Amino acid sequence: MTPAAHGPVVAENKIIDGALLAERIKSDVAEQVRALEERGITPGLSVVLVGDDPASAVYVGSKERTCIELGMHGETIRQPATISQAELLAIVDRLNDDPSVHGILVQMPLPKHIDSDAVVRRIRPDKDVDGFHPVNVGKLLIGEKDGFAPCTPSGVLYMLQAYGVQTAGADCVIIGRSNIVGKPMASLMVQPGVDATVTVCHSRTRDLARHTRRADILIVAAGRAEMVTGDMIQPGAVVVDVGMNRIPDATKRSGTRLVGDVAFASAREVASMITPVPGGVGKMTIAMLMANTARAAAQLREVRS
Amino acid sequence: MTPAAHGPVVAENKIIDGALLAERIKSDVAEQVRALEERGITPGLSVVLVGDDPASAVYVGSKERTCIELGMHGETIRQPATISQAELLAIVDRLNDDPSVHGILVQMPLPKHIDSDAVVRRIRPDKDVDGFHPVNVGKLLIGEKDGFAPCTPSGVLYMLQAYGVQTAGADCVIIGRSNIVGKPMASLMVQPGVDATVTVCHSRTRDLARHTRRADILIVAAGRAEMVTGDMIQPGAVVVDVGMNRIPDATKRSGTRLVGDVAFASAREVASMITPVPGGVGKMTIAMLMANTARAAAQLREVRS
Repeated sequence: MTPAAHGPVVAENKIIDGALLAERIKSDVAEQVRALEERGITPGLSVVLVGDDPASAVYVGSKERTCIELGMHGETIRQPATISQAELLAIVDRLNDDPSVHGILVQMPLPKHIDSDAVVRRIRPDKDVDGFHPVNVGKLLIGEKDGFAPCTPSGVLYMLQAYGVQTAGADCVIIGRSNIVGKPMASLMVQPGVDATVTVCHSRTRDLARHTRRADILIVAAGRAEMVTGDMIQPGAVVVDVGMNRIPDATKRSGTRLVGDVAFASAREVASMITPVPGGVGKMTIAMLMANTARAAAQLREVRS
Repeated sequence: MTPAAHGPVVAENKIIDGALLAERIKSDVAEQVRALEERGITPGLSVVLVGDDPASAVYVGSKERTCIELGMHGETIRQPATISQAELLAIVDRLNDDPSVHGILVQMPLPKHIDSDAVVRRIRPDKDVDGFHPVNVGKLLIGEKDGFAPCTPSGVLYMLQAYGVQTAGADCVIIGRSNIVGKPMASLMVQPGVDATVTVCHSRTRDLARHTRRADILIVAAGRAEMVTGDMIQPGAVVVDVGMNRIPDATKRSGTRLVGDVAFASAREVASMITPVPGGVGKMTIAMLMANTARAAAQLREVRS
């Protein structure tokens, strides 16, 4: 899923509008789904939700609803936190073998007694629409196109491309080295065709501001509320904020407020474009998951038994 | 294979001695081989050589000889350049199923009519001692320890650790984004425990010297003779030269001379330590291949049929 088919978007008030782009992707996916229906295929995503973490339940509900909204099958398989490793693997095996299931996603985090790596490795790589199976991680880094890239980093790259950000030769600095965002983001940005010069910073980086101040594209996925301030940003840089942090705010009825890893007001003064929180990267993740699921359905061949 | 068991090495005349470290690794591997022999296991490496490229023949011969020197089985399967894709895959399948073969390596490059990616993907990941199968690339990036890392980058990391180079918090700049060196090198350097701040530069990077001059550790795998000169290096930096280039030299009987990607004389003036070419990184690659093969033999369980 690339923004190539659409014209470039212009940022109003420097804001990169994740909601706008997510709607555009979803509308493209709905069209793919209609074309697949004509071939007798209804793309299907099965999400396995273990335990009763409220945040996970919200994410999963939203994934299921979006599937249905786009004409796909969406199912959530709910299991108690007491499920055994073997029982969970058996569910994955059943979904692997079910030809009506094109995408499988096991919602993280899993209870401590479960080996999450083993669960992710058990998912058929061609149904791994989260892009976390090692073989998909490897294909992403090598530059092989037939795997799945994780949804948040591919959403970020889509945003940059949709807004016409020049990536070739740009200094791209990424804060964070998680397997979910930082590392796959670096893998995407360094590929031929994207061609950024990529730096990955993290908790052990010395003098972080020295790196952020030379970034043409700054992508922040550190998980620390408002850690990047305007003075750390090069004038004219494009700033992408992957953070989602709840901080206390007495003026809100809930007593909290959602903020990113970037101090938005001071950063917008300096940046040429910036993603807000909420309404930025967060909106892209589910949209890219839908795009991956539709592609899985289009690509899937026989089911290995 | 890590240098932890040995004391730190001190660089004489600033030289990081690849030959010395390679001998040390090979001696450690020979000891592992003796221990495996006691369990009735002789580690075996099978190298498939297609066509008659003279450089490939030299590399492959050296791999086979080193195996035998260390008490392992080493075999080279020579095939004509006219071999079909199906025939080559059938050879890989046979080696996959052969319990006496613990490591499989298909020497690159392959003739143009062969799909190299498909051949690499066909090798069982737990026999892929070159570390090029996507699942091993993915495990390396994620930080899962049960895969195989490519031999040249793991040799470079071994060198840095053997010479006591501080990697945590260091600015590590890598020139080159190949799947064989640059990308896996970056994957290794960014992992927790190594903890470098990693930048990957390449042919599209603007103002390369601006990056190299801030590097505490500079790793050059660009494939261009003597492209990094002393004025591009930060005083006191550690310089690792992965390049191997033949350039004309009328003073030599062969008419050529082997040089790296770093202009050695001017770089040594500035660097605190540097790998020479030859005698540096090149020596490490085969040693790490032997280490991977011994580990494959120690880990390998039943053969899937």
